[in-house]
Amino acid sequence: MLFIDEGKQRAYYSRLDFKLWVGIIFLMVGLSGRLAAAVTTEPDPPNIVIIFADDLGYGDLGVYGHPTIRTPSLDRMAAKGIKFTQFYSGASVCTPSRAALLTGRLPVRSGMMSDKFRVLFPFSEKGLPAKEITIAEALKEKGYATAAIGKWHLGHEPSYLPTNHGFDTFYGIPYSNDMSLKRRGDPPVPLMRDKSIIEQPAKQQTLTRRYTRESIAFIQDQGNQPFFLYLAHTFPHVPLYASEEFRGKSSRGLYGDVIEEIDWSTGKILNELRELGIADNTLVFFTSDNGPWIVKKQEGGSAGLLRNGKGTTWEGGMREPAIAWWPGTIAPGQVSQTLATTMDLFSTSLALAGADHPKDRIIDGINLMPVLTGKQEEVRQVVYYYREKKLHAARKGPWKAHFITQSAYEGDRRVRHKIPQLYNLEKDPGERFNVAKKHPQVISDIKKIVEEHKKNLNRGKDQLSAVK
Amino acid sequence: MLFIDEGKQRAYYSRLDFKLWVGIIFLMVGLSGRLAAAVTTEPDPPNIVIIFADDLGYGDLGVYGHPTIRTPSLDRMAAKGIKFTQFYSGASVCTPSRAALLTGRLPVRSGMMSDKFRVLFPFSEKGLPAKEITIAEALKEKGYATAAIGKWHLGHEPSYLPTNHGFDTFYGIPYSNDMSLKRRGDPPVPLMRDKSIIEQPAKQQTLTRRYTRESIAFIQDQGNQPFFLYLAHTFPHVPLYASEEFRGKSSRGLYGDVIEEIDWSTGKILNELRELGIADNTLVFFTSDNGPWIVKKQEGGSAGLLRNGKGTTWEGGMREPAIAWWPGTIAPGQVSQTLATTMDLFSTSLALAGADHPKDRIIDGINLMPVLTGKQEEVRQVVYYYREKKLHAARKGPWKAHFITQSAYEGDRRVRHKIPQLYNLEKDPGERFNVAKKHPQVISDIKKIVEEHKKNLNRGKDQLSAVK
Repeated sequence: MLFIDEGKQRAYYSRLDFKLWVGIIFLMVGLSGRLAAAVTTEPDPPNIVIIFADDLGYGDLGVYGHPTIRTPSLDRMAAKGIKFTQFYSGASVCTPSRAALLTGRLPVRSGMMSDKFRVLFPFSEKGLPAKEITIAEALKEKGYATAAIGKWHLGHEPSYLPTNHGFDTFYGIPYSNDMSLKRRGDPPVPLMRDKSIIEQPAKQQTLTRRYTRESIAFIQDQGNQPFFLYLAHTFPHVPLYASEEFRGKSSRGLYGDVIEEIDWSTGKILNELRELGIADNTLVFFTSDNGPWIVKKQEGGSAGLLRNGKGTTWEGGMREPAIAWWPGTIAPGQVSQTLATTMDLFSTSLALAGADHPKDRIIDGINLMPVLTGKQEEVRQVVYYYREKKLHAARKGPWKAHFITQSAYEGDRRVRHKIPQLYNLEKDPGERFNVAKKHPQVISDIKKIVEEHKKNLNRGKDQLSAVK
Repeated sequence: MLFIDEGKQRAYYSRLDFKLWVGIIFLMVGLSGRLAAAVTTEPDPPNIVIIFADDLGYGDLGVYGHPTIRTPSLDRMAAKGIKFTQFYSGASVCTPSRAALLTGRLPVRSGMMSDKFRVLFPFSEKGLPAKEITIAEALKEKGYATAAIGKWHLGHEPSYLPTNHGFDTFYGIPYSNDMSLKRRGDPPVPLMRDKSIIEQPAKQQTLTRRYTRESIAFIQDQGNQPFFLYLAHTFPHVPLYASEEFRGKSSRGLYGDVIEEIDWSTGKILNELRELGIADNTLVFFTSDNGPWIVKKQEGGSAGLLRNGKGTTWEGGMREPAIAWWPGTIAPGQVSQTLATTMDLFSTSLALAGADHPKDRIIDGINLMPVLTGKQEEVRQVVYYYREKKLHAARKGPWKAHFITQSAYEGDRRVRHKIPQLYNLEKDPGERFNVAKKHPQVISDIKKIVEEHKKNLNRGKDQLSAVK
C-alpha cells in the first residue's frame, strides 16, 4: 500500500504495540544496568527503611484480606517482596512495642514494661534508658545517616528524645495523638523538630502527608551516604485524621481513608527509591506496633481471622501485617509463614550495616537475612507474649501455650491457668480450640523453655511508672 | 583485553543481565503479536471455565488473608486478573447455590429452595426442573462443547443429571461426598461418567486429581470448538481427602492440604490454557458455592473477618472468594469491590457466547463484562439473601437489612425483626454494629425494593421436599 490515510496512520502509531515499547524500555534498562555493573566495585552497605504503622490490624490491608480498604501500593510491595503471615510485634501496646523494635530486646528487659502504666503518658518522667542501644545508634557508628520521622513514644523529656538515641534528626510527635486530656492537665499534642516544639497542637490532618514529605527529603539528601529511616506513622491510632485528598475517599469510612493515605505514602517512598536508582540497595520493611484497637468500634481496625486485638496477648494483639521489599535481593511474590518479630529487624539491620551485635546484654532479635534471601526457611523457634511485666504466653513452632489469659483491653479479669491453654496456631489461627488435654508433652516442653527464659530475664528497672 | 579467562567468561554469560533477556523476549513477543494481529479476522467466541469450590470460606486463600494455607496459583491468578471482595453465591447451602449459578436465577424461583429440606439427599426424587435453562444449554446452542466435572447436586435421578441439562459429558459425584449414611439407607457415594456409575464408593482421595486430569483432557480435545467447562470440586466439603502428594503438606492440616490441592489443580488448568495458546480467548472464574462449615471445627474453613458461615445469611455464609482471569481482556492486578453474584456468571457467559437472555422468565443475573473489562465500576445494586424459602436479608449498595436472623447452621431459633437490623457492610464488613436507629430512611428504601421484588417473585414449585 502506497497511500496511507493519515487518521489510520495515527491510530496505527497510537496502537503501536504496548509490548514492543516494554521490550524497548527493558532492553535499554538492561543495557544501562550492565554498563553500570561494569564500573561498580564493592557494594555499599544498604539503606534501611522501617515503616511502622500504629494500631494497624492483621486484617486491615487488601493483601491481608480486607474487603473494602484499598491498599494498591502495599499490595504491590508484597507482590514484589515477601509477605509475612506469622510476624509479631514485641508487645501489644505502643511504648514497649517500639522499645522492642529499636533495641532488639524484649521490653521487659529494658524496663519499658510496667504493671502500673502500660505506656508512657504526657505526665511520665522517664523513657528508654540511655544505656539501651538502638538500631540508629548502632548504624550511626557505621556511618549511616539516621532519621526518626513520626511518633516516638519512648520518652518526651529532652534526654529521651530520638536525637539522644542515635537519630540525627527527629520530626514528629513525642507520644500518642490522643494524649491531650484536659482533665489530666495534658498539653495539646506537640509537633517537634529535633528537640523543639514547632507546632502545638499538631495539625493532625496533614501529619501523614508531612511525614512523607520529610521522609522523601531525607532520602534525597543522602547522596552516597547510607541511611536508616524510621518512619513511625501516627495513624491509624485514634483520633483519626486524613488529609483532604483522602478524606471521604474510602468506602470503609475514615479508618479506611487513613490507611489508604498510609498506603499512598508507602508508594511514594518506594517510587522515590526507584527514581533515585537506589531501590536495589535499600531494604524497606512495613509493619505495625500492635493489633487493632477493637473497643474503638468502627474507628478501630480488624485482626481478620485472628482473635481479639490491641492490648491482649491473643494473636490479634501482637501478630502484624509485615512486608519486606528489596528489589534484586528479595525475590518477588513470596509468602512466608516463618516466625519472626520486630526485634529481628534490629539484628537484621545491624548485620546489614556490618555492625556487631552488642555482647554485654541479651538481644532477643535474630538476623532475618537468611529468610529474606531464601537461604533458610526459618531462623526463629520461639515467641514470647508479655503483658505488663508478666509472661502471658509462649509460642514454640505451631504451639502457643497461654499461662495467663485476659480478654479485653482494659479492666478485664486476669485468669492464671494451672494447665495452660494450648492452641495449634497453624491449624487453628483463630485460637478457637484449646487442645491442652491432648498434648501434655508439648506443654511440658514449652514450660521448660519458659523456665530457662525466666532464669536469664534480667528485668530492667521499670521506666514507665515514674511520674511528675 | 585480548585474553579472557574461560571461567570468568562463563560467569559473564551466566550473569548476562536478566533485564536484557526480558527485553529481548518482550521485543519478540511484541513483534510476533503485531504480526499475528495483522492476519487475525473475527475473534472466536471465548471459552469459559467456571471452577467452583465447595464450602470454601472467604478467608481461606492466601490472597484473601489466610496465614497458613498456601495458594500460590490462586494468588497468581488474582495478580493476573481481578480479585472480587464483595461477590456472593446464590444461597448459603449447596443445592440452591448451584441452581443459582447454572440458571442465573434465585433458586426460590426455580423451586430449588424448600422449607423442608435445604438440599437434595440420596433419598430425594427430584432435581433441577427440565424447563430451567442452564449455562450449558444456552452455550450448546451456540456451538459450545460442554462438560460438567465434579459434584453435581442438582438431582441424581437419570433425568436430572448434567447430560440432561446441556452438558455433553459428566464425570463426578451426583451429590455431597458425606451423603452415605448407613442408618438412612444411603448407598456408598458413587462416581459417575455421564449416566453410569463407574466406581462405588468413589475413591475420594484422588477425586481432585482425577477431576483435574479429566478437565485438562476435555480442554485438549476441543481443537477449534469453543468450550464451557464447569469444574465443581468435591472439596473442601467434609469428609476431607487429599491425594498422597498433598496429604500432610500444609501446616494448616488436612483442610489446608485439600485447599492446596485445589490450588494446584487451578494452576494446572491455567498452565494448560497458556500452553495451548488459548489463554487469551478463555475466561476462567474461580469461586465457591457457600461459606465455611464452621460447626465442623478444624475440618471447616474460615470466613476471615466476616460473620458466621455456611447455612446462614450472615456475610460468612454467602460472600465468597472470587477471581476472574482472562489475559489480554482483564487487566492484571485489580481488586474490585463491585457487587456481583454467581448468577451474574450465567448472564456473562451468555453474553460472551452471543446467546440471548431468555425472555420468558425472570433472570437475576447481570452481564459482568463491563466490570471485567474496566468499562464500568458496577452493574449491580441489590443482593438478596434467602434461607429456605424466606428472604432473610437484602443488600442495597453498602447497606444490608436483616429482616430475619438465625445464627447457626442447624436448629437455631429464627428471629423475625420488626425493625430490621441494619449494617453498613463497607464500613463494617463484620456485621458488628447495628445502625438501624440512625438510618430509618435506608430501611424504608430497602423495604420498598423488597416489596417490589416479592411481587415478581414467581416462586417455583418446591423440588427438594419430594422423597422416595
